Parts: sequence; C-alpha cells; structure tokens
Amino acid sequence: MWNSPKVGILGGGQLGRMMVEAANRLNIQCNVLDAENSPAKQISSHDDHVTGSFKEREAVRELAKSCDVVTAEIEHVDTYALEEIASQVKIEPSWQAIRTIQNKFDQKEHLRQYGIPMADHRELTENTPEELAKVGEQLGYPMMLKSKTMAYDGRGNFHVRTKEDIPEALEALKGRPLYAEKWAYFKMELAVMVVKTKDTVLSYPTVETVQEDSVCKLVYAPARNVSDAINQKAQELARKAVAAFDGKGAFGVEMFLLEDDSLLLCEIASRIHNSGHYTIEGCAMSQFEAHLRAILDLPIPPKSLELRQPSIMLNIIGGAAPDTHLTAAEHALSIPNASIHLYSKGAAKPGRKMGHITVTAATMHEAETHIQPLIEVVDQIRAQRSDVKTKPQSSSGPSKPAPSVAVIMGSDSDLKTLVPGLKLLRDYFGIEPAVDITSAHRTPTFMAEYSAGAAARGIKVIIAAAGGAAHLPGMAAAHTALPVIGVPVKGSSLDGVDSLYSIVQMPRGVPVATVGINNSINAALLAARILGAFDPAIQKKVEAYAESARAENMELKGTKLQELGWEKYFEEM
Amino acid sequence: MWNSPKVGILGGGQLGRMMVEAANRLNIQCNVLDAENSPAKQISSHDDHVTGSFKEREAVRELAKSCDVVTAEIEHVDTYALEEIASQVKIEPSWQAIRTIQNKFDQKEHLRQYGIPMADHRELTENTPEELAKVGEQLGYPMMLKSKTMAYDGRGNFHVRTKEDIPEALEALKGRPLYAEKWAYFKMELAVMVVKTKDTVLSYPTVETVQEDSVCKLVYAPARNVSDAINQKAQELARKAVAAFDGKGAFGVEMFLLEDDSLLLCEIASRIHNSGHYTIEGCAMSQFEAHLRAILDLPIPPKSLELRQPSIMLNIIGGAAPDTHLTAAEHALSIPNASIHLYSKGAAKPGRKMGHITVTAATMHEAETHIQPLIEVVDQIRAQRSDVKTKPQSSSGPSKPAPSVAVIMGSDSDLKTLVPGLKLLRDYFGIEPAVDITSAHRTPTFMAEYSAGAAARGIKVIIAAAGGAAHLPGMAAAHTALPVIGVPVKGSSLDGVDSLYSIVQMPRGVPVATVGINNSINAALLAARILGAFDPAIQKKVEAYAESARAENMELKGTKLQELGWEKYFEEM
Repeated sequence: MWNSPKVGILGGGQLGRMMVEAANRLNIQCNVLDAENSPAKQISSHDDHVTGSFKEREAVRELAKSCDVVTAEIEHVDTYALEEIASQVKIEPSWQAIRTIQNKFDQKEHLRQYGIPMADHRELTENTPEELAKVGEQLGYPMMLKSKTMAYDGRGNFHVRTKEDIPEALEALKGRPLYAEKWAYFKMELAVMVVKTKDTVLSYPTVETVQEDSVCKLVYAPARNVSDAINQKAQELARKAVAAFDGKGAFGVEMFLLEDDSLLLCEIASRIHNSGHYTIEGCAMSQFEAHLRAILDLPIPPKSLELRQPSIMLNIIGGAAPDTHLTAAEHALSIPNASIHLYSKGAAKPGRKMGHITVTAATMHEAETHIQPLIEVVDQIRAQRSDVKTKPQSSSGPSKPAPSVAVIMGSDSDLKTLVPGLKLLRDYFGIEPAVDITSAHRTPTFMAEYSAGAAARGIKVIIAAAGGAAHLPGMAAAHTALPVIGVPVKGSSLDGVDSLYSIVQMPRGVPVATVGINNSINAALLAARILGAFDPAIQKKVEAYAESARAENMELKGTKLQELGWEKYFEEM
Repeated sequence: MWNSPKVGILGGGQLGRMMVEAANRLNIQCNVLDAENSPAKQISSHDDHVTGSFKEREAVRELAKSCDVVTAEIEHVDTYALEEIASQVKIEPSWQAIRTIQNKFDQKEHLRQYGIPMADHRELTENTPEELAKVGEQLGYPMMLKSKTMAYDGRGNFHVRTKEDIPEALEALKGRPLYAEKWAYFKMELAVMVVKTKDTVLSYPTVETVQEDSVCKLVYAPARNVSDAINQKAQELARKAVAAFDGKGAFGVEMFLLEDDSLLLCEIASRIHNSGHYTIEGCAMSQFEAHLRAILDLPIPPKSLELRQPSIMLNIIGGAAPDTHLTAAEHALSIPNASIHLYSKGAAKPGRKMGHITVTAATMHEAETHIQPLIEVVDQIRAQRSDVKTKPQSSSGPSKPAPSVAVIMGSDSDLKTLVPGLKLLRDYFGIEPAVDITSAHRTPTFMAEYSAGAAARGIKVIIAAAGGAAHLPGMAAAHTALPVIGVPVKGSSLDGVDSLYSIVQMPRGVPVATVGINNSINAALLAARILGAFDPAIQKKVEAYAESARAENMELKGTKLQELGWEKYFEEM
C-alpha cells in the first residue's frame, strides 16, 4: 500500500525476519539481500530478493536497483557501497550515521560533541604494552580494551583487570584498531529504543537488560525498581544521543545506571535491536513496524510506543548440540502468556541467538513468576555448554512482589492495634505489606521522604496509625498523592476521640480516609477494597469475606440461638 | 520444531495467511492449497504448496501427501475428499464435524440433541409457497428463510417480513436446500472463540459483534455492558456446543443475547473466525496459534486466552473502486494503538474483506475514542458504494465513559454539601461521576441494589454523604466490595458530630473511609487518589493539585504577606 514503496534490507537474519513480518501486515514488499533461504526470506515469497552478502558491493548495487529505500538489520555493512548508491536510492539511516556508529571510537567522539555523558576513554595508536600501560595509569584498573570496529555481543572486548593483563589483552585483540575505556561501576544496564522520523525523535520506555557471556539474556520492560524520573531521564538521554545522527529509523541505545543514579551512554546501534524485541507484545507498535514507518515517512502515533503491560524477554541461545535450544522452546509452550519467536536458522551453534520468548502480565511480579521455570531451563542448557564456565546470571528467582500496601505507625506502641489488620492482610488476602515506624514528630524528614517515595516504589495505599495529637496520617497524605487510610489509636485519655478528630478533620485539599478508633481490621479491609477495585482476585476475596461474615451470623450464631433459646445462649457467652 | 510436523491448509485467504503468520513464529511449515500467490502463500516461501482449489478432490489428495495434519480455513470444503484421505493423514477438526457444520440445518439438528438453545426452525422439503406459508404460520413473521449450505456473510439468507414476501424469498434462494428460522429479537450479538484440544475445551472471552450488510463490521472485546455472569454463561454455552463435535481446533460460535438476558446459539464455524481476530493483540495467544497448537497436540495454557486489554476490531471492506479501502488503512496509520492487518488480496471488490484494524487500550472508552474517526472513514467508504443503500450501523460515536465514581446522598438536602466535591471531580479531574439520591431509610431496597450492582457497572469508588443518624455510607459499604467514602453532613444539631460518629465508627468487617464533616472536597480528592493509584494521568493531576495549593500558599499569600505586612494583610482579608 502507500504507493507500494519497496524496502531493501541488508541482511536477512532474525532482525530482518521480524521486520518482514511487520511489513507483511502492511503489505509492504521487502527485498532482502542475504544468502538463499535466510530467515527473512522464508516469510516473504517473491522474486526480488538478492542472493549474496551485505558486504559485497556488487550485491548492494543490485539490491538498490529494485528498491525505493534501503535499510540494514546490522551496522557492519559496507558503508562505501551505501555511499555509492546514495544517489540512486534513499538510505535510512544515512550511510554517514552507520559509518560513524559502526566505529565505536568514532561514535563516542561524535557523541562527545553533543554533551552525551560516557565513560572516559582513550584512543590507542601504537597498540604497544607501553602505550596501554600509560592509558591504564590515566583511566585506572580495571579497564576495558575494545576494538573500534566489528565489535558486538562481547566480541572485540577484553577486560583488563590489572597491569599484568596487558600482554594477554593486546594479543587477544591483535591487528585491530583499539581504544581503552574506564571501567563503569554500574548497578544496572538500561536500554531505550529510539525512533527517529523525518521531523521528530520518539522513544520507547526504558528497559533493564541482563547480559550473560556478553550477550543479552533478559530484558525487563519497564526496568525494575527504577523510578519514573530515571525512566524519563534515560529516554531523554537516548533521544538526545540519536538526534546527533543523520537519517531515520530505529536505534538501540544502551546505558549504564550508576550507584548515584546518574547515567552513562554505553553504545548505540543504528538499527532495530535485541533490547526492543519485547515491543512486539509489550507495545501497540513493535520496533520493527516503527522502523519501517520512520524510513517510509508514515505517521507514528507516540501513544503506540507506550508499554501496554510489563513484559520480560528471554533469548533462546544455541546449546551444546544443534537442537538443544529447542528444549527451551518446548518448555515455553506451557508457560502462561509466553509468546514464542523462533528464527528458523536451522542447526544452532553454541551461543547463537536462535529465538526469543516474551512473557507479558498485569504485573512484573506475575511475569517474573511465569517466566522463572523457563530461565532455569535456559540456565541448564547453558550449563551443558563446554564453551562457557561461569555461573549463570540472575537465576535468583522472581523478585518478591513489590508491596502494594505500606503500613506505618507513629510509635511501636501502636503496633498491637495494627496487628489484627496486618494478619488479615497477610493471612486472608495474601497481601504482604511493607511495615515501618515513622513518626511525624520524632522523624519528620524520614516520614516525609518515605511518603513522597511510596508511589514510585509501587505502593498503592498507605495505612497510618497514630494516637493522641495524631499527625502521622495527615502528614503522610500531605507528602503523597496516594490514598492514606488513618487509624485513630486510643490513648490513655480522651478515649481516642482526640486521635479521631486529629485524623478525620483534615483541611480541604488533603484527605485522610479515616476508620473507627482502633479499628485496624477496617483499615485493612478498606485497603483490600481499594486494591480490589482494580484487581478482580482481591475483590472476590472481599466478597468472600463479607459472605463468611453473613454465614457466621446467620447460620452459626442464628441457628445456635434458635436451638438454645436466648437465656441459655447468654449463659454460654 | 516439535519434530517438524507439516500442516496442510485448505484455503490460502486471509485466515490461512494469519495462521501461517502464527506458524512462522513457531517454525511450523504450512503447505497451502489454493491459487498461486494467494495471501497465505505470499508469506511462506517453500516448494510444498499446492496450486488448485480446496474444492478439487485431486488437489486435496496431493496436499495430503506432504502433510502430517490437514486443516481448513473455510468450512465449504469437499468433505468427501477429506473422508477419502482420512486414512493417510490426520484431519482436524474431523471431516464429520465439518460436514455437519457446513450444512446449517444438520448443524442445528445435531446441536438440538445436546440441549443447545436455538431459535425455532423448520425444514423445507418441497420449497413451495404453500409449504413456506404453512411454516410461516408456525414460526410467525418476520422469519428468516435460509439456505442449508454455502451460506455465509449473509449470502443464502432472506428476511421474510410478511406472507407477501414468500414468492420473492423462494425466487432469491431458488435451487437451494432450505429451512426457515423464527426471528430472534435480540439486543446484542455475541461471539466466543472456542478451542477444542485432545483433552479439553477452552474458550476466549465473550465478545460483541456488530454486523452491517450481513458482514461482520466491528468486534468489541469484551462485550460492552454485559455482566460477568453473561460473559461466563456465553462461554459455557459455546464450549458445550463445540464439545458436540469431533476433532480439534478453533471454532467460532455466534449467539444472540435476548432482552431477558437468555442466549440462543446462532451458528458455529468449524474454523478460526473473523470474530476472533482481536486475539492477535488482545490476548497473549492468538486464535491462529491456538488452532495450530490444538491440532498438533501442543499445550495451551488457559491463561494465554484471557484478555490482556479491551480491544476493538474493525474490518476494512472493499469500496466502490479497487483501492478505496486503502483510505481506511492510511487513516489507521495515525490512530493511536491501532494495529493494521492488510491481507494482500490485490484489487478489492465492493464488500470484500481486505484487512482489519485492532485498537487496544486500558479502557473500552479509550479504545472507542481512538477508533471512532476510523469508523467514520469506513462509513464514508461504504456510503460511496452503489451496492448498499441502508444507513451505516452503529456510527453513534464512542459510548460515554462508564463512570468510575458514584456519588450518592441520603437526601437532596445533602447536595449543596456535595457540590464543591462534584465540581472538583468534573472540572479539575475530568471525572464525570454518576450522581443519585438513595436513602438507607426511605429507599432501602433501591440503596441495596444500587450498591450491590455498582462494581459490575464499572464503578471503582462510591462517595456517600449523609447527616444525623448517617446510615447511608455504612449500608452502602455493607452491600458492595468497593471502597466507600463517607461524608458526614452537619445537621441542625450536634454540629455534625452525630453524622461523623455514625459513619466512622462502623463495626469491624465493614469499613467506611470517612472524611471531615461537610468536607466533600476531601472526599473528591480521596476518590481521585484511589483512582490515581492505578491511573498515572489522574495521579499526576493529584500531584498538580497539591503543587498549586503549595504555590498559592507560598508564592501568592506568602509574598503578599511579606509585601503588605501582617496588619495591612489582615485589614484586606
């Protein structure tokens, strides 16, 4: 459709295949340059594909003849071939962008001009032990020695732990153009897919990536335990970095999140990227379709790039035997909400990407719980490989579900009042709340920070108990946009009426949902009702609770009263 | 994978194409029997397809040779050819099921034995005006005259309004085997996709279908304004009906929902179905993949058939010119969250299904709002067709969003107390609540029904105001599992303390979230905080409200006080 533009793709691997899948739905013809029967060609039956390699100049010329736009599923293409055909056909992103990005040192030098924060690095010109030792003094150890070109999935990188590693490092990367990079002590690796169109730069959400053997293993969308502020900041950085390059299309941006919550750009890929596979199920528009739309100047509604549901992507990597990885795919058939993508690459080599699985769910915890057995299968497959020796990454099991309810009290003397409610939440509703002591009067700053940060931690409701001049519920409400339930605690004087008035009579603008004096059961039930308004499983339990109260009153007590009569009943009370 | 079973598909139209798309992801080879370059073949490049028609016995025999399982994207296949090859190859669903189902009269006679409710119907054997007139006396007018075979998308049906229509009806369906069906006065058409596996019968959610020109126009998943009980009942009926047939795979079941909320089965299709296209984006597993898994005995986790988000599917139908329908696809490019599926059928004939669009969103109202402009485009395209004359169906615009907040009061005298909160909800938060008078004392039954039915109507929070012996909030809470916010209204005596105590001191088990006396602003803000805990847009507004209060106090009033001094400030107050 759309006047039937034809898209030429350099490379017909899994990325090209998933791009063709998206193109098929829009009836856009893709002409693929790669070996015969490559994964992308298998799902696109026509006579305009080109047999050859994306590194052969003649093949690139031939592809250009039949296309309106040429793009690439890989950045290690012959950019001189692209430069040559640029007068006949549109190339997206530009060959200049691809050429700069495919040389990682040039990429960083270019980004430095745009003020993008990156780990400190030094170019090597002589590649001698003396030169590298001097760089080591400047950057400190450990550091990374890196090839400027043809580096991907950990190939072309060497971890220089001490000065003693220098000879081995130079030997391992012999004959390559090199640079060294200061070690980044990061707490998490983040990634953002960016889509550059003819007139804007859009981004998908910030995701968390887990690498194993220097290859992407898992992607969590959104990144876990990362605040909205960091999510936004990472997207802004990624968009700013991609804006520094010419041309249109999807770009993968990888970043380090440091201990102090600052970000360093790690690297950019000038293409659709493994860290964006989750978008097929996770978003209304996949990175593959967004890339096609961007290079063809078709509209992209920004809303379509938002996350529909938390998603986890797990790569299926070739194991010891050519078909070992299929064990993972077979297991995935029984995983709830798992979408399986096999790339039809035939027999696997150990470590090769053969497919991926994406699990979506209403919460990240649910997605983690579903996918955990599959991560274990993948770890077992890896354990049988002779080419890797280290322990698997991140097989610690699903994270504890982020608590949805926070229970705070002004003093530990309020705890006994809260216990019935805490037990009800945990034992009846299966809701494990976060429980803390934080006084409005004795720890006012902690109380303020706790309340202000609660929503970002995933808390949906706060229960606050206090006695006397009970300020805690109201002050917590003043520091959060979440609903706060107040439990007035009866003190030694005034029968708790002082607490009740202090909590319920908040000024206009800052509400506290007040329950009866000492009634932590009702506070817990109210929290469950609030969660239940959006979670049918919890709402069913609220209904069941009411039903059991009804049954207890009607059938148990009522029947007993009829049987015994009021006088005997009273005697037995 | 899975020992590489090969699936033969009779028919390579859009249904076959989407089945192949699902098979591609699992690396399952599909061999398609249809014309060269049919839609399904275009996305499956190999040499094992068969050129011919699914009605040619020789072609079916040839297909069987290369496959492990044969299935069909259409029920109008030659079941005698299937019966013949059944000894060599598995056929799913069974040829017996397809044969019974493709004859609509036999289908109904078969289902009748299993106690499936259907509209009353009579077989015609002579097809004479006298015979049909006699049937008309039995069934009443209007009635439907139907062809037993080769009836789909309204073809083979004739609406007999009165006895006078009989000659025209018999002429229109001349030469066909006929039956007549009693007219069903339905309020809604529902559909359920059922998946029959080797050991169980699963179902997708109940959806609402809107027909136009006897062709499916829109599918709403889930069905709008249908209770969970009806949704479950429709799924049960659909599963029971499909269980009456032999074989495995996906079945489309269409039903009528009558005014009294009872259900009549309309018809079954022994295949993937237009009413299930929403499953591609709406569920973790599409009907196409579920069909493949069922016929190949691969596991199907039931959770994967649940709805991820409300979804609306709109068909793209051929218009006056061969490319008119592309206007709709082009418009769809700008619709947020719209997934476009074009079937690559080439030039369109008026009324032919050329593609479909699915819009997903967090709420049905949001999905309706997104898709509305596209429905208008589709209606315009239809208006240009010379072959249809009637007005378009259901272009009334998106439904009003279901209110998420209900505000009730015991007496209209409480309204003035509620007005500030109502205005805040509507004008600041854009939340239009349902507002009702329902007294615990004067209309106890209505109050109980109102509260008990609130959750099913989509209400998430109830605000209840009452004065004096204020029972309304507590009684409402006793009849619902939703959070109830109580506003004590100050009466003529006791300063509102009577109302406050009546509302806040609820017994254990039935909580009311109580706010300050007369403080409907806080009640509204609390409702917004509860919704905001699950809706980031509302939570941002709660934060903005707090920020504007802070700014007003700090910048406006604080600055003024510094400028004027306290004495002058007080004079001006």
